[in-house]
Amino acid sequence: MAKEKKMVEAITSMDVDFAQWYTDVVKKAELCDYASVKGCMVIKPAGYAIWENIQHELDRRFKEVGVQNVCMPMFIPEGLLQKEKDHVEGFAPEVAWVTHGGLEPLQERLCVRPTSETLFCDFYAGDIHSYRDLPRVYNQWCSVVRWEKTTRPFLRSREFLWQEGHTAHATAREAEERTIQMLNVYADFCEEVLAIPVIKGQKTDKEKFAGAESTYTIEALMHDGKALQSGTSHNFGDGFARAFEIQFADKDNTLKYVHQTSWGLSTRIIGALIMVHGDDNGLVLPPRISPTQVIIIPIQQQKEGVLDKAWELKERLSAFSVKVDDSEKSPGWKFSECEMRGIPLRVEIGPKDMEANQAVLVRRDTHEKTMVSLEHLEEEVGRMLDVIQNDMLERAKAHRDSHTYIAADWDSFVKTVNEKPGFVKAMWCGDLTCEEKIKEEAGATSRCMPFEQEEIAATCVCCGKPAKKMVYWGKAY
Amino acid sequence: MAKEKKMVEAITSMDVDFAQWYTDVVKKAELCDYASVKGCMVIKPAGYAIWENIQHELDRRFKEVGVQNVCMPMFIPEGLLQKEKDHVEGFAPEVAWVTHGGLEPLQERLCVRPTSETLFCDFYAGDIHSYRDLPRVYNQWCSVVRWEKTTRPFLRSREFLWQEGHTAHATAREAEERTIQMLNVYADFCEEVLAIPVIKGQKTDKEKFAGAESTYTIEALMHDGKALQSGTSHNFGDGFARAFEIQFADKDNTLKYVHQTSWGLSTRIIGALIMVHGDDNGLVLPPRISPTQVIIIPIQQQKEGVLDKAWELKERLSAFSVKVDDSEKSPGWKFSECEMRGIPLRVEIGPKDMEANQAVLVRRDTHEKTMVSLEHLEEEVGRMLDVIQNDMLERAKAHRDSHTYIAADWDSFVKTVNEKPGFVKAMWCGDLTCEEKIKEEAGATSRCMPFEQEEIAATCVCCGKPAKKMVYWGKAY
Repeated sequence: MAKEKKMVEAITSMDVDFAQWYTDVVKKAELCDYASVKGCMVIKPAGYAIWENIQHELDRRFKEVGVQNVCMPMFIPEGLLQKEKDHVEGFAPEVAWVTHGGLEPLQERLCVRPTSETLFCDFYAGDIHSYRDLPRVYNQWCSVVRWEKTTRPFLRSREFLWQEGHTAHATAREAEERTIQMLNVYADFCEEVLAIPVIKGQKTDKEKFAGAESTYTIEALMHDGKALQSGTSHNFGDGFARAFEIQFADKDNTLKYVHQTSWGLSTRIIGALIMVHGDDNGLVLPPRISPTQVIIIPIQQQKEGVLDKAWELKERLSAFSVKVDDSEKSPGWKFSECEMRGIPLRVEIGPKDMEANQAVLVRRDTHEKTMVSLEHLEEEVGRMLDVIQNDMLERAKAHRDSHTYIAADWDSFVKTVNEKPGFVKAMWCGDLTCEEKIKEEAGATSRCMPFEQEEIAATCVCCGKPAKKMVYWGKAY
Repeated sequence: MAKEKKMVEAITSMDVDFAQWYTDVVKKAELCDYASVKGCMVIKPAGYAIWENIQHELDRRFKEVGVQNVCMPMFIPEGLLQKEKDHVEGFAPEVAWVTHGGLEPLQERLCVRPTSETLFCDFYAGDIHSYRDLPRVYNQWCSVVRWEKTTRPFLRSREFLWQEGHTAHATAREAEERTIQMLNVYADFCEEVLAIPVIKGQKTDKEKFAGAESTYTIEALMHDGKALQSGTSHNFGDGFARAFEIQFADKDNTLKYVHQTSWGLSTRIIGALIMVHGDDNGLVLPPRISPTQVIIIPIQQQKEGVLDKAWELKERLSAFSVKVDDSEKSPGWKFSECEMRGIPLRVEIGPKDMEANQAVLVRRDTHEKTMVSLEHLEEEVGRMLDVIQNDMLERAKAHRDSHTYIAADWDSFVKTVNEKPGFVKAMWCGDLTCEEKIKEEAGATSRCMPFEQEEIAATCVCCGKPAKKMVYWGKAY
């Protein structure tokens, strides 16, 4: 029992030190590890299996809305990166530069892609000729590199995995529709699969993507009350098209510039999964994303028939992703371990259960135990996984709603932002001066102008001038 | 009809110029395109969809034999690359070097991974402690970079996609078994899914992977009689483990070095698919790998009911991957196009077919037409796809066998290698001198010592000394 205690003790309580709790969970649930390249991570099997499920679920949704996958090179020639001026200003300070190929210095430096707008634009310029070639709705799954100074597992690292969609359209309207459509795909995915409720909205001009006309975002609230930007979708208008000369002959036989979008979601979302659902026993994974949905733990497994029964139950539960832990560890150790890894449902089966023709089901999210007759095992497991998925979303919503505040004047705004971790809804005049003052003086580093607007007050919480937008303010990851 | 003719004319006949035929197919079937980064490619939707199917099929087979996916960083610090001396000598001359991160020069150069042995070893050194931690059977799907001087789409490019498996074992025997097991996974995959028959064998010491004790390979014969190395599996013994200090406490409480393997298969295999099965009308894809298995082409689609019927047939064929081409192109144009793209089976349906309650099925591989009663459509399509898959493998085998020659003396060996494109089976004494002479003077750049040995003669085809191995010689891609 000493070892078991040690395993549990090794996690810092989230109320004591949330950042340390996060690091402990990442490490003890074996999701990822630091690599010997500073700021880069090794995603271990338990972490990568989550990413594979995310890819699978998201890719299916992409294909349903006409997305085609492609693969662009990882290198961008310096001259190509410089073609769109806002874009290069935004990214050049944080890219990694390749200067030598083999033993020779390169004639032109190449950066390792921090994002691939310039590559897609360069390709589209040669590939799109006529309205018949539109729309182009391409995506790639890859890794990108941004030379960050401070890094944290999943949340910010010098290399991370993501998908980046890049589209080209005949009209401004179609581009805007696609931008919103993909944001909705992300939001639905987060809610339905990851059980993470999100606020859909627009970023301010100051915060939009380098080169975009408008940037939309989904924002989720973590357990500690900080906001995490969980996916973004950008409308570029024809800015990149003009810089890269991407023109097409329209039906009326005139040459027009295409309108473009891009949208991305990264391994950062695994950080959100941890911080929205986790508890002091470790990771808690929603059934729809968990690589293992059910773990069967035999009790007194040395007793005759117990292991056979455990394997028989696994057979019967083949509609789900099930593992049997038949290792020689004690049941208590196994309980701690599968809790640490966040497996949604545990099935315990021992000699007494077998006599009574029953099993014990234990929910990871609530620790609730239920006796179930083996006759109804399949349906009970299925039902309970649905209940867990649903309850996890509802709890996350309730947590977010109970940590969402309203502030109508400056004093209560500053006080709320600093004393009540969570979202603070307040009005804004739309001026950069106020945005910067709110960031500097109130410490609200996150802001999102939600699609669902409310009129909390008539005036800006900062300057008192007429308000233009209701904004969710908060502290950002 | 002028346009249709143009489309077909644009492909060079394979008998006239095989290399140009290959380039034409890659381009006209829209598989990939050059990027503005020299030597790098853009894999377009039709090409990437093939790679996705390859990934899907291979990954499933990997998981069946206990492989777990992970993700390592793309950068290798120079010091890490240098730890194993054969390995660095093999790869350093062809890597891309990152020297700056953001605006700062790096203290230590980083190379973009040409392969990840050093990263996995570095990770394993910190992660493996006890025999309980073994075996480790990890794999990653990623891209790697090798600064090649001459490049060709899929066959050789500066960046390519692949999977690389890296394992660590307690014993030499287990490592050897895994090396062979993974080679068998590749071979079975090539034959069963890609309909490409392969020779399984071992590479010579001169040709083995940098740092390996032994390298195994699967070799396929292309339509032009050249050999393509299609996948490799390496046994490292404990060489890397000694260089990286990867030790574990064994059951007997002594510290031992692990034994390691690695194995990889890349987008190069798409080149093999093209060159084994393609013909003068374009790509020919085996049903089990083709993103679209069946294309339905409505004839006289403006006539009432034709399009509805086409969509109805698609519904009925939902067990397969089916597309309807309802574009406004002429049927002849559509035929050329789906032949170019290699879609295995074409279903034609027009007013006359509808009256007769039948459809026309046309095989891509043989161009054979069959009338099928709509009553038996599903079963006929399924049956025919199986037949096509099987026939394609058999034809590829027959081609390989009819292009495999035997040579027992030097003169006939040189003559056969140079006059008869294909494999030449001949005996070898095992000496490097003969291997080099055979390469220089006979022009045989490919060699593979097959697992299935035959004794063609008692003496080496080159020097006349006693022979040790029968070798498949040929000209390599």
